Amino acid sequence: MNISPLIDQLIDALRCLPGVGPKTAQRMVLHILERDRAGGTRIAQSLTQAIDGVGQCRNCRILTENELCEICASRSRDETLLCVVENPADVLAVEQAGGFRGKYFVLMGHLSPIDGIGPDEIGIDQLLARVQRDSVKEVILATNSTVEGEATAHYVSEQLRPMGVDASRIAHGIPFGGELEFVDAGTLAHAMDGRKKI
Amino acid sequence: MNISPLIDQLIDALRCLPGVGPKTAQRMVLHILERDRAGGTRIAQSLTQAIDGVGQCRNCRILTENELCEICASRSRDETLLCVVENPADVLAVEQAGGFRGKYFVLMGHLSPIDGIGPDEIGIDQLLARVQRDSVKEVILATNSTVEGEATAHYVSEQLRPMGVDASRIAHGIPFGGELEFVDAGTLAHAMDGRKKI
Repeated sequence: MNISPLIDQLIDALRCLPGVGPKTAQRMVLHILERDRAGGTRIAQSLTQAIDGVGQCRNCRILTENELCEICASRSRDETLLCVVENPADVLAVEQAGGFRGKYFVLMGHLSPIDGIGPDEIGIDQLLARVQRDSVKEVILATNSTVEGEATAHYVSEQLRPMGVDASRIAHGIPFGGELEFVDAGTLAHAMDGRKKI
Repeated sequence: MNISPLIDQLIDALRCLPGVGPKTAQRMVLHILERDRAGGTRIAQSLTQAIDGVGQCRNCRILTENELCEICASRSRDETLLCVVENPADVLAVEQAGGFRGKYFVLMGHLSPIDGIGPDEIGIDQLLARVQRDSVKEVILATNSTVEGEATAHYVSEQLRPMGVDASRIAHGIPFGGELEFVDAGTLAHAMDGRKKI
């Protein structure tokens, strides 16, 4: 049963959001139309403004409405230390963790030849040009710990080697506060391999 | 850390949706801006169209973009049998269950004096006028099985008594396929009270 074509169309449109299925979409639509039309209007306006106004930073490819993002524009951050991540959300995560004072480069994805995503699509040329221009001393590869993320990190480090730039990979091991018995086998094996002398 | 004011504004706007907190909203925004701007535009357009176009059915108060909803406009349904529910979602639920061939009246809420919601706000006058006009024979009270839903059902049945119209309450008991040992005490007590001779 469909109440109205306009409602069906809206339910259908909302399903493009991550984690939103037909039931959740229906609940959202009825909530907006019954109880919060002002909120719905605000969503529509903000969405249009963000889609029109937000592009990628010329320098690091993160999402921003200016030509340069806040971090790239900052003079107080060390531009010779570069952290390479897959997505804008990863930048937010590293910033929230605190302590990193360098700059970022966002690949907007990872190498995935099967999906037609090669070095050009993730901006490797732009990354290498930036490393040269800013005399970067160390590149921290903070791609995800997945097969694609590891392959991407490996590929980038291979490109950096002839340039004489240090490449490092963020550590993998037991999560902070994690108990050994609840950690999965793969993580534990990594942690054993990556042990450090104390 | 905030990437951009437009993104923050959109994250904030999305939080009015039920079940969407700051993390989920951020994930939705990044998904739209990185991967599915067309989908985002479709949401904004559908939202504006639905908010502008969808109102309440003149007859049963369900959400519809026409003056009369599909069910009220239908000639094949029995208008002397009226099912009273709290929300449009309840109409969808009863329709999905199948088997009901009468019409509906949606209260758009329940009596809740503490929130200033009295008989006027839930359209009791309109309901009684409709019962008289359509010579309704039976009103099925399908409000929720909550304190407010029960109070609302009781109030409506009291209003119907002097009009000589049958009022009935949907049955409460063990869910279909439910096992006794997993049913909560309140439901089980209701089921025992409501037992029928076989």
